[in-house]
Amino acid sequence: MARALDQLITALQRLPGVGVKSASRMAYHLLQNDPLGAGQLAQALMRATAEVRHCRLCHTFTETDVCDTCADPQRDGGLLCVVETPADQAALERTGIYRGRYFVLMGKLSPLGGIGPQEIGLDKLLERLAGEVAEPVREVVLATSFTAEGEATAHVIGQLVRSQGIRVTRLARGVPVGSELEYVDLGTIAHAYADRR
Amino acid sequence: MARALDQLITALQRLPGVGVKSASRMAYHLLQNDPLGAGQLAQALMRATAEVRHCRLCHTFTETDVCDTCADPQRDGGLLCVVETPADQAALERTGIYRGRYFVLMGKLSPLGGIGPQEIGLDKLLERLAGEVAEPVREVVLATSFTAEGEATAHVIGQLVRSQGIRVTRLARGVPVGSELEYVDLGTIAHAYADRR
Repeated sequence: MARALDQLITALQRLPGVGVKSASRMAYHLLQNDPLGAGQLAQALMRATAEVRHCRLCHTFTETDVCDTCADPQRDGGLLCVVETPADQAALERTGIYRGRYFVLMGKLSPLGGIGPQEIGLDKLLERLAGEVAEPVREVVLATSFTAEGEATAHVIGQLVRSQGIRVTRLARGVPVGSELEYVDLGTIAHAYADRR
Repeated sequence: MARALDQLITALQRLPGVGVKSASRMAYHLLQNDPLGAGQLAQALMRATAEVRHCRLCHTFTETDVCDTCADPQRDGGLLCVVETPADQAALERTGIYRGRYFVLMGKLSPLGGIGPQEIGLDKLLERLAGEVAEPVREVVLATSFTAEGEATAHVIGQLVRSQGIRVTRLARGVPVGSELEYVDLGTIAHAYADRR
């Protein structure tokens, strides 16, 4: 087989969730049907790796010093929502209910995966809470995912924030809208019962 | 969101089977955890689109005028196996049972998808059968897939080859090795019965 093709198939396997079969299918498709798309992808990769960096305030991806959300003067700087990824932030934004600022961890604590407090930018978060780089924060909303690692991350950050004398809240756990109780797992029902209102 | 990041997410959706969610996950992963991999992927894409072309004889991907399989003097040039993709060719090669040459369609007939005889290189196949560019062919083995489109492609090519007075065979349909009859679909059992030996 062509060596350049082999290299492309190997390189495509750096993408998450892509094994050798999908990578081959992708490579054949690009070379056979979409060489233009291959060129665009190469350009986009180079541009993004060169230009995208982290927002000085919230740690998310941006091309400027401070991201659009952090630069928006309409937002309530006293509310800080901690999320794992830009995708989680986007999901919250789509609800339209939250008008505060964000801190994006770009991951979650995972001792086995070698992701510690440094990797998720807890030092930056502390600076932010100290009120030196932006408005003082009066409440931190923990919106990490409800998995073991997400809960552990929320726990660590919660302690950190409380030690600064700042109020901490966590997104409510409960029965998802539209579900029938019969099909909801027991842990969720137990939480929904305990947090009933 | 950063514009370069948006462009990368859009470009990643050119890959088959990748929607906006997977594309975002891929982009975040590359930028956050594997910028080196992103650079390698960009390089591999550019190199492959620049250097990979089609073999003059069998139509598969190669970086030279004629691919390794076609250039191998040990192979029986009188046997020509028609497959849809380089992946199908690789699967056949792994069995080690076939020692003839190949013709790779790089697709299959799909009138609705705009893929006609020209796109799968039937003119090249005809040239090859005429014995002008390589050894004369005495048997064509049709190894396109056993789907509706693959069968239609095999049918069209079979007629073409027969019209040249060359023998045509098709891979046998039957019960896969290791299957229990109970779980095999009826069409396969019917074919296995009709072709019993």
